[in-house]
Amino acid sequence: MVLSGLKSSVQTDLYDRVIELARRRGFLWNSFEIYGGAAGFYDYGPLGAILKRSVEDLWREFFILREGFSEIESPTIGIEEVFRASGHLSGFSDPIVECIECNEPFRADHLLEGIVNDVDGMSARELEELIRSHDIHCPECSGDLGSVYDFNLMFETTIGPGKGRKGYLRPETAQGMFVDFPRLLRFHRERLPFGAVQIGRSYRNEISPRQGVLRLREFTQAEAEIFIDPADKSEPRFKDVASNELTLCPASLQVAGEEAIQMRLGEAVAEGIIAHESLAYYINLTYEFLRECGIDPERLRFRQHRDDEMAHYAGDCWDAEAYLDRFGWAELVGIADRRDYDLQAHSRVSGMELGVFKEYEKPKRIEVTRIKPLMNYIGPKFKNRAKHIVEALEKLSPEDIDGETVTIEVDGEEISIGREAFSIEKMVEEVRGERIIPHVLEPSFGIDRIIYTILEHSYHEEIVEGEVRRVLKLPERIAPIKVAVLPLLTRDELIRPAKKIEARLKERGIQTIYDDSGTIGRRYRRNDEIGTPYAITIDYTTLEDETVTIRDRTTMKQIRRPIKEIENIVTRLLKREETFNTAFNTDA
Amino acid sequence: MVLSGLKSSVQTDLYDRVIELARRRGFLWNSFEIYGGAAGFYDYGPLGAILKRSVEDLWREFFILREGFSEIESPTIGIEEVFRASGHLSGFSDPIVECIECNEPFRADHLLEGIVNDVDGMSARELEELIRSHDIHCPECSGDLGSVYDFNLMFETTIGPGKGRKGYLRPETAQGMFVDFPRLLRFHRERLPFGAVQIGRSYRNEISPRQGVLRLREFTQAEAEIFIDPADKSEPRFKDVASNELTLCPASLQVAGEEAIQMRLGEAVAEGIIAHESLAYYINLTYEFLRECGIDPERLRFRQHRDDEMAHYAGDCWDAEAYLDRFGWAELVGIADRRDYDLQAHSRVSGMELGVFKEYEKPKRIEVTRIKPLMNYIGPKFKNRAKHIVEALEKLSPEDIDGETVTIEVDGEEISIGREAFSIEKMVEEVRGERIIPHVLEPSFGIDRIIYTILEHSYHEEIVEGEVRRVLKLPERIAPIKVAVLPLLTRDELIRPAKKIEARLKERGIQTIYDDSGTIGRRYRRNDEIGTPYAITIDYTTLEDETVTIRDRTTMKQIRRPIKEIENIVTRLLKREETFNTAFNTDA
Repeated sequence: MVLSGLKSSVQTDLYDRVIELARRRGFLWNSFEIYGGAAGFYDYGPLGAILKRSVEDLWREFFILREGFSEIESPTIGIEEVFRASGHLSGFSDPIVECIECNEPFRADHLLEGIVNDVDGMSARELEELIRSHDIHCPECSGDLGSVYDFNLMFETTIGPGKGRKGYLRPETAQGMFVDFPRLLRFHRERLPFGAVQIGRSYRNEISPRQGVLRLREFTQAEAEIFIDPADKSEPRFKDVASNELTLCPASLQVAGEEAIQMRLGEAVAEGIIAHESLAYYINLTYEFLRECGIDPERLRFRQHRDDEMAHYAGDCWDAEAYLDRFGWAELVGIADRRDYDLQAHSRVSGMELGVFKEYEKPKRIEVTRIKPLMNYIGPKFKNRAKHIVEALEKLSPEDIDGETVTIEVDGEEISIGREAFSIEKMVEEVRGERIIPHVLEPSFGIDRIIYTILEHSYHEEIVEGEVRRVLKLPERIAPIKVAVLPLLTRDELIRPAKKIEARLKERGIQTIYDDSGTIGRRYRRNDEIGTPYAITIDYTTLEDETVTIRDRTTMKQIRRPIKEIENIVTRLLKREETFNTAFNTDA
Repeated sequence: MVLSGLKSSVQTDLYDRVIELARRRGFLWNSFEIYGGAAGFYDYGPLGAILKRSVEDLWREFFILREGFSEIESPTIGIEEVFRASGHLSGFSDPIVECIECNEPFRADHLLEGIVNDVDGMSARELEELIRSHDIHCPECSGDLGSVYDFNLMFETTIGPGKGRKGYLRPETAQGMFVDFPRLLRFHRERLPFGAVQIGRSYRNEISPRQGVLRLREFTQAEAEIFIDPADKSEPRFKDVASNELTLCPASLQVAGEEAIQMRLGEAVAEGIIAHESLAYYINLTYEFLRECGIDPERLRFRQHRDDEMAHYAGDCWDAEAYLDRFGWAELVGIADRRDYDLQAHSRVSGMELGVFKEYEKPKRIEVTRIKPLMNYIGPKFKNRAKHIVEALEKLSPEDIDGETVTIEVDGEEISIGREAFSIEKMVEEVRGERIIPHVLEPSFGIDRIIYTILEHSYHEEIVEGEVRRVLKLPERIAPIKVAVLPLLTRDELIRPAKKIEARLKERGIQTIYDDSGTIGRRYRRNDEIGTPYAITIDYTTLEDETVTIRDRTTMKQIRRPIKEIENIVTRLLKREETFNTAFNTDA
């Protein structure tokens, strides 16, 4: 719950308050702050980096451990050919216009918003004409605007000295998996389906990013490319999730101006709303992942791309969107059926065949017509040239035979061969399989947006004893610090057992914080603000009876337990094998 | 042991053989292979990515869990100011010369190697003169060479559209920690010492990298910046490691042309060979980390920078070097005392004071001379201007008083004030502390080189039953796959229990591989090649008595054990709580 009427909240919205806490507590910092910062760049501070790593590790648990996909790491700098194939070189741009007076750049289409309807997909020239005809000037200084041109959003650089070779910072991690397809296919022993994933930085040279951590020029993606048989998009595990009900916004409802609906995935597939079982399965996996991250399911929906926004090659595409106080519905994940677009494109540009041999379950028997050289004739007649003549004949197809003789080239010489040298025979052959180009399903996660959403959805303000308590109700799994160890006072006799307890928790791999500065109340608040689920306090009763208190961040309830039980209690709580309430019957 | 006389090894050296295995088994792939590749870029395949992550996680265990340092993540793109301060803008370049005929670029100093002694530190002009006077031509096409110029090794790009803002891909992760120093200091409650670390990509636009995975244009670094009190470089934990003996190459021995020596760290500090305890402590930590990675201690040494290679600002600097078959001694880690160079530099360029207030243990009492305005005189005389006059007087220091009157400026007017308005008094003041600029210790790890070294040092060729067995003897902790689960034959009755065992190991978080393709011998070899420490084989005896065999990769010994014990045995073996030999008395 967020108290919006509080004094401290009057001038700032929720985004500002979350970012203020994130900055103060070491989650997110503006990059290059001592130099005045740079728009579109953020640093993860010490707690942010742990949080980010927890989210990435949870993602790996879903996509590597559970799904069995392979992780790769490819460079962030890519060569020109890759992006010529992917389409980013020609189609990854925004129309921009600069002010002639103050040189400020603007998105040309954004300047026309509210003035002209439906500027999507207009050319630079069309936008420029509209800007002129509506007499639009610079929103900053009212100066005249220059020409509209398409600005490619890839960061460009040069590899090597001199003229070198053009390089681009990758706009997505996905291309690494496509470019490595032949190696990945061999690694998976030439069999479909298989998935490859990558977690890493991607780049987008935004024109003038103004949405803080929501629109970054450098960001982290976690992407999976799942290579499947185009003829079989069923998913055996779908039956286990088919009855799950999600909030869906099908394209048809959006067009009709209607609201999102709750729908079972099985129903959505059966009614043709979600294209197929595989896509629905990954929509569900995405939902489960985001929920385990601590994103509020009530503020999460899956929105289908409408025809006018779907890539021409995509079979179907759904975005996981989270509701954010300042920005409304924001895309966190895209889940697309990209069909064979990427492999075909790289195949075309590289000249490499990027397919897989698909064996039929049973070999097919196919009637074919073949040319059969007759050795009894060819042998004696052509002697030592006979072998080459047989080979040349076998290369011919029956369509090449037009009349009673054929002309073949043998050892650079043209020879005319009559029907006495070969027969044309119909025969039945066994065909074991065929070469196919796999289709690709791509769940693509924006890690930074997910992390901001986790912070906003877990952020709560509560009035406790007349003061505002700010608390991040992060799931145990995701919280950067799991346990705070707090001696009641900065006294040796309390510090010693506290440090001992901390060391033993650390040995179990539990992230702890030891804190003895300030009042105990202040230390609880500090740990509430960073989402620490449990706090252990060592006081003078500890010295008498070897017990400590455990405090639950969410409920602020406390319970006293023997030191020797603490490690097991904490381990069980963190694994969610028990909740604080059930473990201690605190409601009883 | 590597068999160099084998037929398969005749034409290739160890590097080639390791890379061949790494490529075939999915550790390392040339980037952009379908487009003919690009020098200086490598991909990590599925096993390489797991190996890399294991190494990074082990590094985190050393530097975050054990040392308590904070991890941050900052952008790979940096703004110009950062690199003006760091010195990379002016001083991070190589002298290059291009062939006028074929345009091939070369390192100018490399072309003079063996022809002219001691070209280090020569200017571009000096190098050009030497190239002319020695009539050196293009080594590729014998064409004439152009002018020598300094080529900056940072990749350059533009942030934002139009003229934008210059950006550079970071040449090291370290600058992120320096730029964030004020935030980090606050996070650590303004107290020294503290450490901040970062693991991430760095970039170096090499002129023409020809050393494979050893010289990359994009690479991963793990760097720690440890901010310490310049007045106290002792390290309380040093006593625990002082008796460790390492292979050291002090600068003095190198200058004298002598060999490396075995020396206790305590002795090296006492004799002034290693500058101080803190540096020696991190040298030891580096040694322990590299050894746990599986790097051979016999092929590992610590070499001190000589005066002619040490950065002018560095207090002391040691490289951890590994011996590699093709490249000789190669730097894996640099451990430097960078003093206050970086913080001073950023302070100068940013105008921010990057220091810390160091409280004295006891406040110091210092005798000072102060000007004391006499209110009895000033009040009545200056009335409503009195306050401003008092303030102006208090800003003066006693040295400003030269004679019996002083001139001060009040509200834009100069006023002459006589001695009747103030007294000069000596007094004793308490000073609680002072502002200092911390010194920085920097252990900087090249992760890719470490990974290649792990592969080379763990690579063994052995003759087994007349065939070459290639095996990676990777430590349990580092091996990408921990256990292979192998049904003896592809038969349902064996596959079922095999899959059950695999699932139970996976549930414990153990990385497994299930493999039922090919003969059992071939599958053992395959797992030997990827360094899988243990293989579990399910055979027909399993169906009779519920036992399976466990095979040890290193010794190839096998032992039969009940299925129900397998998880515990494997867990204990992987944690090295027991070795295969002691666990099963296989030598008995």
